[in-house]
Amino acid sequence: MPQRTPMFTLTELTQNLDITLQGDPHCKIHNIATIQEACAGDLAFLVNPLYKKYLPTTKASAIILSAKDAKECPTNAIIARDPYFIFAKIAHFFQRKPSIAAGIHPSVILGKDCKIHPSVSIGANSSIGSGVGLAAGVVIGSGCVVGDWSEIDENTFLHANVTLYDSVKLGKRVTIASGAVIGSDGFGLAKHGGVWHKIPQLGRVIIEDDVDVGANTTIDRGAIGDTVIEKGAKLDNLIQVGHNVRIGENTAIAGCVGIAGSATIGKNCMIAGAAGISGHVTIADNVVITGMTVVSKSIQEPGIYSSGAGGLMTNLEWRKNSARLHRLDRLEKRVKALEANKES
Amino acid sequence: MPQRTPMFTLTELTQNLDITLQGDPHCKIHNIATIQEACAGDLAFLVNPLYKKYLPTTKASAIILSAKDAKECPTNAIIARDPYFIFAKIAHFFQRKPSIAAGIHPSVILGKDCKIHPSVSIGANSSIGSGVGLAAGVVIGSGCVVGDWSEIDENTFLHANVTLYDSVKLGKRVTIASGAVIGSDGFGLAKHGGVWHKIPQLGRVIIEDDVDVGANTTIDRGAIGDTVIEKGAKLDNLIQVGHNVRIGENTAIAGCVGIAGSATIGKNCMIAGAAGISGHVTIADNVVITGMTVVSKSIQEPGIYSSGAGGLMTNLEWRKNSARLHRLDRLEKRVKALEANKES
Amino acid sequence: MPQRTPMFTLTELTQNLDITLQGDPHCKIHNIATIQEACAGDLAFLVNPLYKKYLPTTKASAIILSAKDAKECPTNAIIARDPYFIFAKIAHFFQRKPSIAAGIHPSVILGKDCKIHPSVSIGANSSIGSGVGLAAGVVIGSGCVVGDWSEIDENTFLHANVTLYDSVKLGKRVTIASGAVIGSDGFGLAKHGGVWHKIPQLGRVIIEDDVDVGANTTIDRGAIGDTVIEKGAKLDNLIQVGHNVRIGENTAIAGCVGIAGSATIGKNCMIAGAAGISGHVTIADNVVITGMTVVSKSIQEPGIYSSGAGGLMTNLEWRKNSARLHRLDRLEKRVKALEANKES
Repeated sequence: MPQRTPMFTLTELTQNLDITLQGDPHCKIHNIATIQEACAGDLAFLVNPLYKKYLPTTKASAIILSAKDAKECPTNAIIARDPYFIFAKIAHFFQRKPSIAAGIHPSVILGKDCKIHPSVSIGANSSIGSGVGLAAGVVIGSGCVVGDWSEIDENTFLHANVTLYDSVKLGKRVTIASGAVIGSDGFGLAKHGGVWHKIPQLGRVIIEDDVDVGANTTIDRGAIGDTVIEKGAKLDNLIQVGHNVRIGENTAIAGCVGIAGSATIGKNCMIAGAAGISGHVTIADNVVITGMTVVSKSIQEPGIYSSGAGGLMTNLEWRKNSARLHRLDRLEKRVKALEANKES
Repeated sequence: MPQRTPMFTLTELTQNLDITLQGDPHCKIHNIATIQEACAGDLAFLVNPLYKKYLPTTKASAIILSAKDAKECPTNAIIARDPYFIFAKIAHFFQRKPSIAAGIHPSVILGKDCKIHPSVSIGANSSIGSGVGLAAGVVIGSGCVVGDWSEIDENTFLHANVTLYDSVKLGKRVTIASGAVIGSDGFGLAKHGGVWHKIPQLGRVIIEDDVDVGANTTIDRGAIGDTVIEKGAKLDNLIQVGHNVRIGENTAIAGCVGIAGSATIGKNCMIAGAAGISGHVTIADNVVITGMTVVSKSIQEPGIYSSGAGGLMTNLEWRKNSARLHRLDRLEKRVKALEANKES
Repeated sequence: MPQRTPMFTLTELTQNLDITLQGDPHCKIHNIATIQEACAGDLAFLVNPLYKKYLPTTKASAIILSAKDAKECPTNAIIARDPYFIFAKIAHFFQRKPSIAAGIHPSVILGKDCKIHPSVSIGANSSIGSGVGLAAGVVIGSGCVVGDWSEIDENTFLHANVTLYDSVKLGKRVTIASGAVIGSDGFGLAKHGGVWHKIPQLGRVIIEDDVDVGANTTIDRGAIGDTVIEKGAKLDNLIQVGHNVRIGENTAIAGCVGIAGSATIGKNCMIAGAAGISGHVTIADNVVITGMTVVSKSIQEPGIYSSGAGGLMTNLEWRKNSARLHRLDRLEKRVKALEANKES
C-alpha cells in the first residue's frame, strides 16, 4: 500500500481555527497519533484526563490541549477551548480518501426520466431507478441500488452497496454507509383467519440534512405518513428503525439499537449501544439512554435513564443473585410476620 | 417526485369485501391518512380505542370501523368485523409500486443449466448461479446474487441486493427484503489443538410459502439437515437465525431478535424485538415472548414469557436498585437473625 | 436440484486421521446424518451424552465416537479421542461446494495499479479499487466491492456482496460471509456549537490469518491506529465491531454481539450471543461471557461472567418480580425498624 507522507506546518493546520499556538509555528507534522504512542513528527491531542499522565513524556511534536494543561506541555501546543473539536478539524488534513472517478461509470444502469446534475459521480455496477433526482455533488458508490422516484440532495454520499427503495428522500450532506437499507417495508401485519396479512406500507423515508447512517443499518418506510430522521442526527451501524419512527435533530444513536414502529425520539438525545425503544413511545429532548436499556414507556423529562438490574459479576454470583431475587417474595412475607409479631 | 393522484369510489374500494357501507357509496377517495390528520378525500380507519377521541372531529371522507363505533361516525363509514384487516385490503389500492421491467436485464449474468420461466423478471447487475430454478412470476431485484442449485417457487420476490447462497429453497409468494443473506454457513466450530476448526455446514435453508424475511436479516444453512422457516412465518429486519433452527407456521418475529442454533420455535408464536433464543431450546405453539427477553430454557406451555428484572427508571434510581440487589444477601441474613431472636 | 450421491469407504474417510476403526473398513458411506435420524449408508457421530440414548437403536452404518462408548456401538465405529474434531474433518468429504469459475469475470471492474495473482478468481459484477493487492488463491464472490489500496493475502475467500472499504488488510485463509462490511468509518463525533462534527477515521482494519467473519457483520476502521482481529478469531453474523477494537487470537464471538469502540478482548475468549461490550474496557484471556451480558467494566481474571438478574419466567411472575424489586428499598427500611425495635 504505497502512501505519500503528508506534511503540514502547525500554521497551515490551524489556519482559521480559534486556537493559540505555543512553540514553533513552523514545526512540521506528518501524522496523527495517540499521546502515548506518538513519535517525532506526530500530532496528538489531550482531552480525557486519564491520559494526562502521558503528557510529560510524550514524544509528539505537538499536542492539541486546553489552556489549563498548556503549561505542562513539553512540546509545541495548540491551545483550544474545545481540543476535541479542533482535533476533528485538523485530522481532516491527514485523511487519505479514495479518489472518486468523475461522472457516471459506463456499467451503471439508469432508469427513465432521471434528473442527474452533471457533477454527480456514480460508481461501477450501480443501478438507478426511474424518475430519480440526484443534485450537485452527489456521490454514489459501487454496487448501489437507488429505487424509483428517490431524490438525493446536494453533496450526499452513498458508500458502496447501499440500497434505497423507491421514493426515499435524502437531504444535503447526508452520508450512508455500506450495506444500509433505506425504505424497506415496515413490519405491518394484520392477523385474519389464522394467517398474517400484509399492511401495505404507503409512506416514505425522509432523511434531512447532515444525517449519517451507519453500515448495515435498516430504516423502514412509513405505513401511513413517513419515517423521518431530522437534520444532524447520527446513526451508527446495525440499527433498526421501524416504520413511522421520528428521530429528532442532532440525536446520536450508537450501534445495535432497535427502535420499534411509531416511536418518537426528541432532539439532542444520546442513545447508547443495543438499547431497545418500544413502539409508540415518546422520548423528550435531551434524554440520555444507557446501553442495553429497554425504553418500555414514554420519557417526559430530560435526564439519564436505565433499565435492567445488577451489573457485571461472575456467573456463580449471578446464579446466587437470581436465586435470591426469586426468594424475595418469601423474604417480604417473613418480614411481615416479624412485624406482626412485634405488634402483638 | 411526480405522482398521479389515485381516485376510487367507496364501492370500488370495497368490492368483494365483507363490509357494510354507511353513507355515500360514490364518495371519491384519493388517499389514506390517520384519523387525526385526514383531510377531505382521505380514507382513515379506527381500530385502537385510544384514537376514538378523534372520530367526532375527523375530516376524513370515510372511516373504516366496527359496528359499535359506526353510529358516532360523522362521515361515510365502511363497517367491518375486522377493520384492520379490511384496511390492509383497501390500502393496496393506494400503494404505488415501482414498475418491474419484464424479462431479464441484459446486464444479468446467468449460470449454466438454469430453468427460468419466461415470466421471470431479473433486475440489473444480478447474477444467477448454475442449476438454478426460477418459477413463474418470480421477481429478482437489482444487485442480487443467487447461488448454484437454488430453487425459487412461483411469485416470490427478492428485493435489491439480496444474497442467496447455494441450494437455498424458497416457496411460493415469499418476500425477501434487501440486504438479507440466506444460506450462509452456520457458526459450527470444534476446538482442537488450541485452534478452531470449521464444521462443514452440509444442510440447506428451506423457506416455505408466504414467508417474509426483513432487511439485512441473516439465515444460516443447516449443519446436518436443514434450517426451516415454515409457511406464513414473518421475520422483521436484522434478525439472526442460526443453523438448524425451525420456525413454525405463522410465527411473527420482530426486529433484532437472535435465534441460536438448533432452536425450535412453535406455530403462531410472537417474539418481540431484540429477544434472544438460546441454542437447542424448544418453544411451544402460541407462545408470546416480550421484548429483549432471554429464552434460556424450553417453554412447554402457551403463554406470555419475560425475563430481566426492573423496568425503566432514572439512572440514579437504577444505581440504587442495583446496589440494593447486591445487598440482598445481607438483608436475608438480617431477617434470619431477627427471626432467631424472636424465637429465642 | 440434481445431486450426485457421494460414496466413500470408512478407510477412505479416515485416512491420516488419528482414529481406530472397529468393524468393516470397506463399509460404504453416502451421507452424514444425526444419530437419531440416520439410515443405512449414513455416518453419524456421538459427542453430547444426551444423545447416547439413540446409540443402541441407531440405523447408521457407522458412528464416530469415543473409546468409552465404543463397546455399546451396534454398528461400525470410528473411535476417536476427539470425535467432534474427527467429524469436522470427515464432513468435508460430503460438502458440495459450488464450483468457482477460474479467473476474473468479464463484468468485473478493475481499478488502476492492482497486483492480482493469476490464480485469483473474481465473480460477476464485482468492482475492485485502485492499488489493490490480491494474492494467490484469493476468491472474491459476485457483487463484492473492494476499496482502494486493500490487500488480501493467500487463499482468502469473500462470499458474494461483501464490502471492503479502502486500505483494509486481510490475512491468509480469511473467510468473509455475504453482506459483511469491513472498514466503514467509526462512530467518532465531537459536539461543538450544538451540532455533531465528524472525527475523521484515519486508521485501517487489519484482519489476521484464519479469521472468519459472519454475514452482515460490520467492522469499523480505527480512528487513530487500527482495528485488529487477531489470527484464528471467529465472528458470527450481525456483530458490530467498533473502531480501534482489538479481538485476541482464537476468540469466538456469537451472533448479534456489539463491541463498542476501543474495547480490547483477550485470546481464547468465548462471547455468547447478543452480549454487549462497553467502550474502552479490557477483557483478559480465557474469559467466557454468557448470552446478553453487558460487560460494563474491565475483566482482569479468566472465568465465566454474566449480568442481568432473573431468568425466564411467565410475564405475570415477571411483573410481580419487578414490583418487588422496586419495594426493596422499603423492605430494607422495615428490617432496619425491626432491628432498632429489637435493640431498644
